[in-house]
Amino acid sequence: MGRPDGRAPDELRPVTLTRQWSIHPEGSVLVEFGATRVLCTASVTEGVPRWRKGSGLGWVTSEYSMLPRATTTRSDRESIKGRVGGRTHEISRLIGRSLRACIDLKALGENSIVLDCDVLQADGGTRTAAITGAYVALHDAVTWMAKRGLLAGKPGDAVHRSVAAVSVGVINGQPRLDLCYDEDVTAEVDMNIVCTGAGDFVEVQGTGESGVFDRAQLDALLDLGVAGCGKLAELQQAALS
Amino acid sequence: MGRPDGRAPDELRPVTLTRQWSIHPEGSVLVEFGATRVLCTASVTEGVPRWRKGSGLGWVTSEYSMLPRATTTRSDRESIKGRVGGRTHEISRLIGRSLRACIDLKALGENSIVLDCDVLQADGGTRTAAITGAYVALHDAVTWMAKRGLLAGKPGDAVHRSVAAVSVGVINGQPRLDLCYDEDVTAEVDMNIVCTGAGDFVEVQGTGESGVFDRAQLDALLDLGVAGCGKLAELQQAALS
Amino acid sequence: MGRPDGRAPDELRPVTLTRQWSIHPEGSVLVEFGATRVLCTASVTEGVPRWRKGSGLGWVTSEYSMLPRATTTRSDRESIKGRVGGRTHEISRLIGRSLRACIDLKALGENSIVLDCDVLQADGGTRTAAITGAYVALHDAVTWMAKRGLLAGKPGDAVHRSVAAVSVGVINGQPRLDLCYDEDVTAEVDMNIVCTGAGDFVEVQGTGESGVFDRAQLDALLDLGVAGCGKLAELQQAALS
Amino acid sequence: MGRPDGRAPDELRPVTLTRQWSIHPEGSVLVEFGATRVLCTASVTEGVPRWRKGSGLGWVTSEYSMLPRATTTRSDRESIKGRVGGRTHEISRLIGRSLRACIDLKALGENSIVLDCDVLQADGGTRTAAITGAYVALHDAVTWMAKRGLLAGKPGDAVHRSVAAVSVGVINGQPRLDLCYDEDVTAEVDMNIVCTGAGDFVEVQGTGESGVFDRAQLDALLDLGVAGCGKLAELQQAALS
Amino acid sequence: MGRPDGRAPDELRPVTLTRQWSIHPEGSVLVEFGATRVLCTASVTEGVPRWRKGSGLGWVTSEYSMLPRATTTRSDRESIKGRVGGRTHEISRLIGRSLRACIDLKALGENSIVLDCDVLQADGGTRTAAITGAYVALHDAVTWMAKRGLLAGKPGDAVHRSVAAVSVGVINGQPRLDLCYDEDVTAEVDMNIVCTGAGDFVEVQGTGESGVFDRAQLDALLDLGVAGCGKLAELQQAALS
Amino acid sequence: MGRPDGRAPDELRPVTLTRQWSIHPEGSVLVEFGATRVLCTASVTEGVPRWRKGSGLGWVTSEYSMLPRATTTRSDRESIKGRVGGRTHEISRLIGRSLRACIDLKALGENSIVLDCDVLQADGGTRTAAITGAYVALHDAVTWMAKRGLLAGKPGDAVHRSVAAVSVGVINGQPRLDLCYDEDVTAEVDMNIVCTGAGDFVEVQGTGESGVFDRAQLDALLDLGVAGCGKLAELQQAALS
Repeated sequence: MGRPDGRAPDELRPVTLTRQWSIHPEGSVLVEFGATRVLCTASVTEGVPRWRKGSGLGWVTSEYSMLPRATTTRSDRESIKGRVGGRTHEISRLIGRSLRACIDLKALGENSIVLDCDVLQADGGTRTAAITGAYVALHDAVTWMAKRGLLAGKPGDAVHRSVAAVSVGVINGQPRLDLCYDEDVTAEVDMNIVCTGAGDFVEVQGTGESGVFDRAQLDALLDLGVAGCGKLAELQQAALS
Repeated sequence: MGRPDGRAPDELRPVTLTRQWSIHPEGSVLVEFGATRVLCTASVTEGVPRWRKGSGLGWVTSEYSMLPRATTTRSDRESIKGRVGGRTHEISRLIGRSLRACIDLKALGENSIVLDCDVLQADGGTRTAAITGAYVALHDAVTWMAKRGLLAGKPGDAVHRSVAAVSVGVINGQPRLDLCYDEDVTAEVDMNIVCTGAGDFVEVQGTGESGVFDRAQLDALLDLGVAGCGKLAELQQAALS
Repeated sequence: MGRPDGRAPDELRPVTLTRQWSIHPEGSVLVEFGATRVLCTASVTEGVPRWRKGSGLGWVTSEYSMLPRATTTRSDRESIKGRVGGRTHEISRLIGRSLRACIDLKALGENSIVLDCDVLQADGGTRTAAITGAYVALHDAVTWMAKRGLLAGKPGDAVHRSVAAVSVGVINGQPRLDLCYDEDVTAEVDMNIVCTGAGDFVEVQGTGESGVFDRAQLDALLDLGVAGCGKLAELQQAALS
Repeated sequence: MGRPDGRAPDELRPVTLTRQWSIHPEGSVLVEFGATRVLCTASVTEGVPRWRKGSGLGWVTSEYSMLPRATTTRSDRESIKGRVGGRTHEISRLIGRSLRACIDLKALGENSIVLDCDVLQADGGTRTAAITGAYVALHDAVTWMAKRGLLAGKPGDAVHRSVAAVSVGVINGQPRLDLCYDEDVTAEVDMNIVCTGAGDFVEVQGTGESGVFDRAQLDALLDLGVAGCGKLAELQQAALS
Repeated sequence: MGRPDGRAPDELRPVTLTRQWSIHPEGSVLVEFGATRVLCTASVTEGVPRWRKGSGLGWVTSEYSMLPRATTTRSDRESIKGRVGGRTHEISRLIGRSLRACIDLKALGENSIVLDCDVLQADGGTRTAAITGAYVALHDAVTWMAKRGLLAGKPGDAVHRSVAAVSVGVINGQPRLDLCYDEDVTAEVDMNIVCTGAGDFVEVQGTGESGVFDRAQLDALLDLGVAGCGKLAELQQAALS
Repeated sequence: MGRPDGRAPDELRPVTLTRQWSIHPEGSVLVEFGATRVLCTASVTEGVPRWRKGSGLGWVTSEYSMLPRATTTRSDRESIKGRVGGRTHEISRLIGRSLRACIDLKALGENSIVLDCDVLQADGGTRTAAITGAYVALHDAVTWMAKRGLLAGKPGDAVHRSVAAVSVGVINGQPRLDLCYDEDVTAEVDMNIVCTGAGDFVEVQGTGESGVFDRAQLDALLDLGVAGCGKLAELQQAALS
């Protein structure tokens, strides 16, 4: 009745954060949570969207996508369908909100950073891996801006906290950390938790996939998730130093 | 420093649930949370989507939309833009998941119910009003099906629990129930809570809109939300009897 | 062989025009022709479309749409299909042309008014109800502009005539006024007539749905339509006073 | 103060109907009303749209389009804009309805005919030229079907009347037949009339483009239009014999 | 085993270039390669696309399309499908590149010319006919600009060489010039060759449709194509004088 | 005046072909031509597109795409623009045609293989790298099918030749093999050559980007390209053994 890969219930999969995986972007990180593999790039452009001009504030946004064969069976491309699906929209918005929580848009000046999170291989937890990797790519992009004098102040003022995310869920009544795909599809409750390095919440999204959950289950999942994010924050710091 | 409409922090706005507002749908409810006004209709069709055929299970889904001038300034129609926006996608998916939590898809047989939630007037909390009203419309549609012998068993077997939703948030450090628009835009933390009539969680979505939140704040919001959903469940039951 | 609802051939259905149905728009009218129910809102915005800039003239346009379950069976949303259908296009254009006939675009200044006509419930004659209701909403929006000094002159100069519309048709050889849905689908000839309060024509659209029609039939329908528009003009005036 | 090309007010432009202009279609007619030049092709396909299967009835539909430089200034292609405009939709629907009025869909069997009307050069009256030409192309296509034994009965049973169309309008207070572009843009009233060869009406669409019109003007325009359609019916008959 | 129309392997079909086929465009040519018939219009507009502003250079681009019944069976319109197909894209780009090879974009000033190539009737070689006709339309448009003083210098400076195109292919092992449709579909190798009047290559695109080809075959096809383009260049010059 | 990376004019960049880069697809190859990095996956599905059913033949097709930040500056996603661009269409079609040249569609049975070629990093030659890598992925997918008894015959019968591609071009008058991005943008002539392992041509596409080219230049480029493809064929064979 253990986990498919033999992990303890509160154990993360092996996580790697490979910086500068690509040569062109201002920040680029290949993040791996087990077999889940997401390329996160941060692209800096001068200027902000029209509705923000003259505000003195910068802008950070994100676009999430999956390669058609990142999954066990091939999905059609959204470019060919001519429309972005609801799941893609939802995850892109979540990543964007989460990353905006760690940056001071004033210190950014009127510049924009787009975080592209492209899933090269999926095995559960792609959105949480994407947030965790995108934070490191964003940090690198802000450092790049600082070197060119594009920031007001030091990078540390712009990126004033770290952000990481992890999935938690209940499988066969047992709360587990960092679900792989096989666990994800059988989970009774599924939750994504985004925390700062200081352990505060940025976003909490829990769903009773095949039922409902009570306060005790919710508390257990929050505990697991906060602890998991704490470990990811250490890995992020290690990657950046 | 009180609320714009003088409510206590844990007080709902006046809520009305007007059944049979429209003549054509199998279920139709005009739900009002204060000035927020959503028309929820339940449309029954024989058969299920192709990927579900032969499963013996029914299907319940939802589409949420806003009239262009439901809000203080006019928005462009998504039909004219030619694409459904991320917010619309996200809310439609939330309503669908929430309502599927209260229905036994087996008891429904291979029939489908679409819950259309169209916001006629918006003043905060449109998605939670939509879920609360859609539950009543769904209940009426299932009763309609039962009368025509389209169900396996009694409606009570099909709709085996009730579902209601409410927003909660922190404004000026104070946790508040059922935010109106003016509160929503200034909230430091914003949370939507979907509960069953028994007080269990179906969905919890919390966002640090302009910052982060700690466990104590989260607990206070959960308490407020559960209590609010309890009152809404009573109003739903009263409307249905 | 009488009408489904027992009306005389030259009798309108009960018509109501409820002003200020919504709180946000500059003009908002819920118009009902029997069971047909259309929400007409008028939204004022500064400025005009690009092709009109510098002309000194304002602009009035309209967008018509139906809620998916306004009808006896559910229709797919045009936002999800990703394209506006031909019928929607055609009716939106008709409403826009009709309303531009009652307004002096010069007196409006370089401001725009969008008339959104959303059918909440359909039972025939939705486009003619929409025109009749949109006139009242437009009038209210122009009064609103006048109060804020946004007009050149008095509202009466801007809205220099009233406009109303009604459907007429031939059923079983009998010309009838204001068809309900059951009559509409069996009509041999179907005609929409838009008139000013003074009884002049703004638009005449007649179609031999299941055949053709001669000059005598056309004349009889025109007579019926002009008389019906006259009664609607009185109801509009009563609503506005 | 006469017409730009010196015609009498009740005079058509030179009209030509060139059959078999293209080699591939079952019917193809290049119709010219003065400088207006429309290629009308009729394409026969076995079978009918899904919603009509098993009815024993055929289907006739139309698609109207303009080449980008058919007009004095270039328009963007609708294929590149990714959507069909309202004017295109409206005219396509008018042509389809008009042509269905002259055909017995039962005699057609479960076969479909698409009438493509592509404007190669525009100088006013493109929709009326299209209807007039499409009738001849449709007639040829039905003859083609008859030769292959695809009809129930003789072609004369299937195409049981002829249909032609012409525009009329009021310019400087004068009713005129068959407006060219320069007249069209200055017309106070603009009307399109579709008649059968027997002089009955199929469709009447009149618009007060820059004002309104009274019953006397409407009557004068109807007289002009019916006479014009009569002449076009003779030209159609001559072309077909 | 000869060609379907009895031509010699190195013989063009009858080619006609009819200038001023349309009255509105600055240049318009109906080009016919046998039964293939393409309307090429050149539209001059002041200004250039945004990315080119301030460069002092003009822009020439092309859009290719087929009427739905230009072919033996009817194709759906790309406007209705809501997207431009790959073949259309590919050919539009080829025509644009080819025509830019014959024009000095500096001599054009910051003006744009769009070459619309609409296939009215297709019998193989539509893209090569389009390039050959578009050159003549472009030449006329540039002459039109010169007359209005819109060019820097003489037209001869702007259009500094001529461009023509022809298809070649291998059928039953025999290299042939200017394939008609029946040859095109059975060709083992298919090649489009774009040459200047001086015999230099602008574009060479060869495909082994049902196999592969060796250097000797490629050389034979190049010889045929260059000779064919030479004859077309003479016809272009004759048409322009 | 040498090459940016010091290569000889007839020298390929370092080429790597990493098989099984992904765990899910039936074939997956990360191909690198210098800094150009393309992930090629081959997805096998039972059945063929509708137009091919009952033919007994299989189908092979390809979709090419670039990650938004594969390039020096970020491009907008085609999914968000809602349409596939011309360049993407053109390259997808080229890859599909090229790979179909190496496979016996009869030996494949009625099965389909989609070759997804996603550019993770671009530095010139992405389409030729994609073809070269996709061949290896296709080979692996066919082997996978053979193991499951999905083929008629041995894999060697299905994949009856190898296919590789390389770009060649003229820079400063010098013919060069395998252009990197900096060479590509300054090339006077640009050519893509697709060859079989036996040295026959599958596809030849040459463009005079900033001018024209004569037969001698064309011959020199063909020689370079054929030699380059020969080396790539050896690398493919080594990777597969």
